[in-house]
Amino acid sequence: MNFECLQENLNKGLLIVGHLVGRNITLPILSNILLRTKEGVLELISTNLEIGIKTKIRGKVEKKGSYTVPAQLLVNYINLLPNEILKIEKTESALQIKGKKYETKIKGTETEEFPLIPEIKEEEKFQIKNENLKEGLKKVLPSVKENEIRPEISGVLFDFQIKEKELILVGTDSYRLTEKKVILKEGKKDKKIIVPLKTLQELLRILELEQEERIIEINISESQILFKINETELISRLINGQYPDYKKIIPQEIKTKVITSRDDFVKIVKSVGLFSQTEINDIYLKINPQENKLVISSISDKKGESTSQLEADLSGEENDIVFNWRYLLDGLNNIDSSEVVLEVINKDNPALLKSLDDKSYLYLIMPIKE
Amino acid sequence: MNFECLQENLNKGLLIVGHLVGRNITLPILSNILLRTKEGVLELISTNLEIGIKTKIRGKVEKKGSYTVPAQLLVNYINLLPNEILKIEKTESALQIKGKKYETKIKGTETEEFPLIPEIKEEEKFQIKNENLKEGLKKVLPSVKENEIRPEISGVLFDFQIKEKELILVGTDSYRLTEKKVILKEGKKDKKIIVPLKTLQELLRILELEQEERIIEINISESQILFKINETELISRLINGQYPDYKKIIPQEIKTKVITSRDDFVKIVKSVGLFSQTEINDIYLKINPQENKLVISSISDKKGESTSQLEADLSGEENDIVFNWRYLLDGLNNIDSSEVVLEVINKDNPALLKSLDDKSYLYLIMPIKE
Repeated sequence: MNFECLQENLNKGLLIVGHLVGRNITLPILSNILLRTKEGVLELISTNLEIGIKTKIRGKVEKKGSYTVPAQLLVNYINLLPNEILKIEKTESALQIKGKKYETKIKGTETEEFPLIPEIKEEEKFQIKNENLKEGLKKVLPSVKENEIRPEISGVLFDFQIKEKELILVGTDSYRLTEKKVILKEGKKDKKIIVPLKTLQELLRILELEQEERIIEINISESQILFKINETELISRLINGQYPDYKKIIPQEIKTKVITSRDDFVKIVKSVGLFSQTEINDIYLKINPQENKLVISSISDKKGESTSQLEADLSGEENDIVFNWRYLLDGLNNIDSSEVVLEVINKDNPALLKSLDDKSYLYLIMPIKE
Repeated sequence: MNFECLQENLNKGLLIVGHLVGRNITLPILSNILLRTKEGVLELISTNLEIGIKTKIRGKVEKKGSYTVPAQLLVNYINLLPNEILKIEKTESALQIKGKKYETKIKGTETEEFPLIPEIKEEEKFQIKNENLKEGLKKVLPSVKENEIRPEISGVLFDFQIKEKELILVGTDSYRLTEKKVILKEGKKDKKIIVPLKTLQELLRILELEQEERIIEINISESQILFKINETELISRLINGQYPDYKKIIPQEIKTKVITSRDDFVKIVKSVGLFSQTEINDIYLKINPQENKLVISSISDKKGESTSQLEADLSGEENDIVFNWRYLLDGLNNIDSSEVVLEVINKDNPALLKSLDDKSYLYLIMPIKE
């Protein structure tokens, strides 16, 4: 293997594929990046067996071949070089990198041991703008956690709605749930799949490296999903299973409604939350529309107690409810507009948090039952 | 105790005293801040037994008294409140904080158990501008480490030179040494003392909270030092012992001189350093003025090897020397000017790193001997 490319291009490619690769002690080659030359391009490939990322960079290929080297060392080294043409060549037991004023050999491993990234049998295709997908993932991912007992919620529901030209993204850890609707550009058939959290964290990271507007292509087979972002492909398994029928628990018969400033709500939740019971994180909301009073309080044996009034427009019935203040804060932080709406049935049912003017975002929060 | 003050003022005071206080399990009251009212002021006091910090904030004192509460909780809570007048009152077992829309009780401990901060018997006084002291500490502190075997280098040498109107600050961990001269405003007599690292880290943090120009007053007794910054006093023990006579090892008979760009040098040290032996961090400099060539290289069994040429003005004899690249980097990062000078005797003697145009900064670096 022998090729030339610009430091800037190689560096960009390494930022895309390098992050997935951690230190893998049981299978050391998974700590490596695979470099492989094809016609006029260098492919960079990384995998953790569940996810594979491949990207291409342009260059002059003198001699075809492939080799693997430790990801972290390669990423850090290339990042420190000046932007000029690099000559890269495989020697007997190393990758040699030469520039005008430097020469480096990175010890690596032959390609044979490197696991193959499966090719997807293309079945169903969808298209979405990078900005839309990025926005959706940013809102939904904070509600998702790895869950070994319930693998079906260890990922995000992708619900493609062709007629509405919408992709509905849903994430939950069973204590709160986020639903975010984003614009779908293309697609032929409704489809529901569950994409693993870790895959989407990598995808979001790659989307955030891209400044320009792009169309993301999504190919879905029975057990796999492929995201094509420009010259980059991210492939992952899907999660088998039935996503919970969350629509059933979205409150319909609202008894009490609160409209207030997001920033004021955030500050009071944070400050009162300091006095909640450790690990329970419980704060109490007393909503009294008759007296036009919303009181938020917490108490802990060790720390003391705190009570604050939040200015708000209140309507409906008097109501009390207890939340985990950290979950409430996550929901508030995800709302971009200055006014938020909280809708409550009673202290035993999930409450709904949303933006006053943006219907595309819903945050369901389960109360702490006393 | 019962007083009123502005949230903004209390918040500023807490940022000054609150940082020193960590979680102290053996003596829990040291996790607290002492609040004490005097005529028209509230004093905030924290201590870790070696260092004491006291600051004053203006307020309306209704009833004198004192109380201690957990630092972290108080700091975090006050920081989240709006800037308005706070009414603060000691109740039976808590500090009550009231504003227009909130009321909070923080559980605390009576003052009796709180250790007294010693008063200093004022002996010798010096004055220095905050900007000068801050700049000096920033340069010198990175070279200092806690050292149980050699307590005399666990601090910074303050060498007050009255005739030159200079304060010379010196720090070393025995592998490298920084000397920085700053302007002294006032002082009557030459004096040499050693101030503990931890004290100066707190002092630097407090100096960095202050934007405006201030005169710092330094009072020194036989075993203690007091820094007065505006309304804040920081008191600490001094380190007993003789500071090493570092001037003896500052190279005088330079054999080889390198003048080069700081940024280029930094980049090459970082990139070549990646291939140094783990924990030894050794990089090799080959300086050849005849061929006008400076080559920096490293090699490690596991990672590979790297060689770079650094463009530089070279003069004097041919010379080789091995450095710990992290120490070299610390020295380079501390130089503000774009051109740096490296002066070498030979591979067994300390080398000198300095700015081309600023004579007030010296960085001595010991070679790794092969």
